[in-house]
Amino acid sequence: MTISVPATSANLGPGFDTLGLSLNLRNRVHIHPSSFFSVSIRGEGADNPRLKGNNLFINIFNDHYRYLTGKKGIFRFRFINKIPLSRGLGSSSAVIVSAIASAYAAAGVNVSKRKLLNLALHYEHHPDNITPAVMGGFNTAVVENRRVYSQKKRIPGYLKAVVVIPDKPISTAHSRTTLPKSYRKEEAIYNVGHASLLTACFFNESWEMLRIAARDRFHQAIRMKMLPELFEVQRLAVEHGALMSTLSGSGSTFFNMVYREDAAKLHRAFEKRFPSFRALILDFDNDGVIFS
Amino acid sequence: MTISVPATSANLGPGFDTLGLSLNLRNRVHIHPSSFFSVSIRGEGADNPRLKGNNLFINIFNDHYRYLTGKKGIFRFRFINKIPLSRGLGSSSAVIVSAIASAYAAAGVNVSKRKLLNLALHYEHHPDNITPAVMGGFNTAVVENRRVYSQKKRIPGYLKAVVVIPDKPISTAHSRTTLPKSYRKEEAIYNVGHASLLTACFFNESWEMLRIAARDRFHQAIRMKMLPELFEVQRLAVEHGALMSTLSGSGSTFFNMVYREDAAKLHRAFEKRFPSFRALILDFDNDGVIFS
Repeated sequence: MTISVPATSANLGPGFDTLGLSLNLRNRVHIHPSSFFSVSIRGEGADNPRLKGNNLFINIFNDHYRYLTGKKGIFRFRFINKIPLSRGLGSSSAVIVSAIASAYAAAGVNVSKRKLLNLALHYEHHPDNITPAVMGGFNTAVVENRRVYSQKKRIPGYLKAVVVIPDKPISTAHSRTTLPKSYRKEEAIYNVGHASLLTACFFNESWEMLRIAARDRFHQAIRMKMLPELFEVQRLAVEHGALMSTLSGSGSTFFNMVYREDAAKLHRAFEKRFPSFRALILDFDNDGVIFS
Repeated sequence: MTISVPATSANLGPGFDTLGLSLNLRNRVHIHPSSFFSVSIRGEGADNPRLKGNNLFINIFNDHYRYLTGKKGIFRFRFINKIPLSRGLGSSSAVIVSAIASAYAAAGVNVSKRKLLNLALHYEHHPDNITPAVMGGFNTAVVENRRVYSQKKRIPGYLKAVVVIPDKPISTAHSRTTLPKSYRKEEAIYNVGHASLLTACFFNESWEMLRIAARDRFHQAIRMKMLPELFEVQRLAVEHGALMSTLSGSGSTFFNMVYREDAAKLHRAFEKRFPSFRALILDFDNDGVIFS
């Protein structure tokens, strides 16, 4: 059996810890019953056999498989990883979601996406990556009483993401410590308004107004200062018609949304200006986790 | 000619200064060219001939009419007011919007709703009442560079508002001074998430989830403490199946949204428990300002 989970861009603009969307760049894991335990990795993380992500996967998988079946199964796991590690593209959430989904699939137990999402919340307390990883599309999500409450909007195929992946990470832990402990009322209201408008723009497919709605006063500029090239990334994106150009998660990846016909030109501009960064043109994903 | 403008409930739940919706409770003004200036008022405010609201109307009307025509017109104004004054139902915004709309109508100059909204912003700096007053429906709105950027969702006819209008106001000015100057990051993120989710619930018509999404940590409880009966109003509403039960504007009115079939029962419960308050069952409005 195969489980595949998409990359995600969260913390979208003003939507700190709440807005996220799903990108068609997937990690796959193939699971086969076996007489001995084995793990193979291709793609991202293949060069690091003691990779934390795979330990995390195996631990979560074992917990759930044992809970569901009462025994410890023996499996062969083949990982094909496309989501870059520690770049703000939801690689940890993908590991968590795929591990739980794999345990249910291996145990032959059906699980709803809503339940899967609430199980993932035990391992990742912010809902903005795990929600689109499970559901696909654009999502708003909050946590109340240890449950995720979320709403989804499908993203049309005439839009593309052009993501810029720098050659170094911004540490999430370090990044959080640099953020203020409180916000002035005006700043708080600014983000409340803009995050709500951003949400409404997605639902109404009013893409042009995202250029206003995606503005943030909580975290983005503070984090971008740790990798100042990102200001130039954003400037280039805006110049090339980006509808939205924001930090992905807590970085270091920059997420840019464009009309399909503008994608190639923006991609070339990024490759020319930042030859050491990776730039990818991606479709949006509307499926989330897939069992097959 | 006649201009009519709906009442509005703004500051909706977590959507401080940004989320608002329109109620089918309308102030109308009939304007006729005349050989002498005269004003008559029926309904709300009729017992106060020096009412500030009408001075405000006449001043705004005159400013715009003079700007549009180069002269001071002479008109007879008949006001038929249904929006209660100083109760958080957008009576000031209705005056502002109707005055500007009346000036354009009297001058014979067409004006788009978007332009009307930006003109109204000169007189009312928060967008959450003027936007639904102009546009109708549920709206998210922000202000950037002295312009309102907003998105609208029509509200279906199977939903009703049951508003409870206390016999006394909460002063907006006083009410604002009791609010904190800043919010802890957790509270700020809470409202960003919930306001975004509330917006998505309206667009997805996921009414049941509003019970979670409409929770607020910025202003509601602080303001309700100035009129503690409102906690009992909210409790009654929730008991009777309200989908959403929040302060309207900065109060003192409480806004409750219910399925059509639950409206009468909730209305009776309010009338029985709070005989000195007014309780109204209202349709939502999706038209905003109407020129006729």
